[in-house]
Amino acid sequence: MTLSTIPGTANTPKAAPAAIDLAHKFSLIDALWQPRVVAEMNDYQFKLARIDGDFIWHQHDVTDEAFIVVRGHLRIDLPDTAVHLRAGDMFVVPRGTPHRPSAQGEVWLMLVEPRGVANTGDAGGERTAPNDIWV
Amino acid sequence: MTLSTIPGTANTPKAAPAAIDLAHKFSLIDALWQPRVVAEMNDYQFKLARIDGDFIWHQHDVTDEAFIVVRGHLRIDLPDTAVHLRAGDMFVVPRGTPHRPSAQGEVWLMLVEPRGVANTGDAGGERTAPNDIWV
Repeated sequence: MTLSTIPGTANTPKAAPAAIDLAHKFSLIDALWQPRVVAEMNDYQFKLARIDGDFIWHQHDVTDEAFIVVRGHLRIDLPDTAVHLRAGDMFVVPRGTPHRPSAQGEVWLMLVEPRGVANTGDAGGERTAPNDIWV
Repeated sequence: MTLSTIPGTANTPKAAPAAIDLAHKFSLIDALWQPRVVAEMNDYQFKLARIDGDFIWHQHDVTDEAFIVVRGHLRIDLPDTAVHLRAGDMFVVPRGTPHRPSAQGEVWLMLVEPRGVANTGDAGGERTAPNDIWV
């Protein structure tokens, strides 16, 4: 064995960086309401989720949360109003704002938010998904 | 005039929040290489840019920078390699990494990065675009 074949040495070839194909990543997600990380930027994460139907009302007290719809029709219920997003639309829910995502049929959703944010925010409960699972 | 008709009072009706239609926002941008802000999330901004051709080599020493391609074919040159992004692909350029975006024909690009990041990074010069212009 030469030095260059020992894993973890400086001579280990690095994988060439590649683009992240979002549609392909969505196709690898096998469960609804389970956000999966596809990229990190500083202390923020880009997460993808396949969702269908109503989520629960919750809020995030310390951060805004960005939603970008890649496929389908998402309604985000807010106090006294609702926002409708179709593929190619985005919306930022301000911190401290109660909201309830409701997918009108299956939706492919990208979320951008700081690392560690729970999908159920202050509400917690059985629909809380684990964090930091990459796809 | 009643109190409720005076602009800026507590009685001024607020506009209902609405989704941001990214394709529509791109259609409003009338110049190449001029990033426009469409949303803020905490101290980060989502910017859209229409670009075509080669940019300049530069780097951002204090932040990663996320690229999401909405239309077209973007090559990001990096030291010793290049990443190719098509519509629906994303890539995060790590902080301190020299890079040169090169649009192979017109590209519609979303950038996500902290507020205040200059498009030319450390390089500066005549291709530096003003910040904080919304569309």
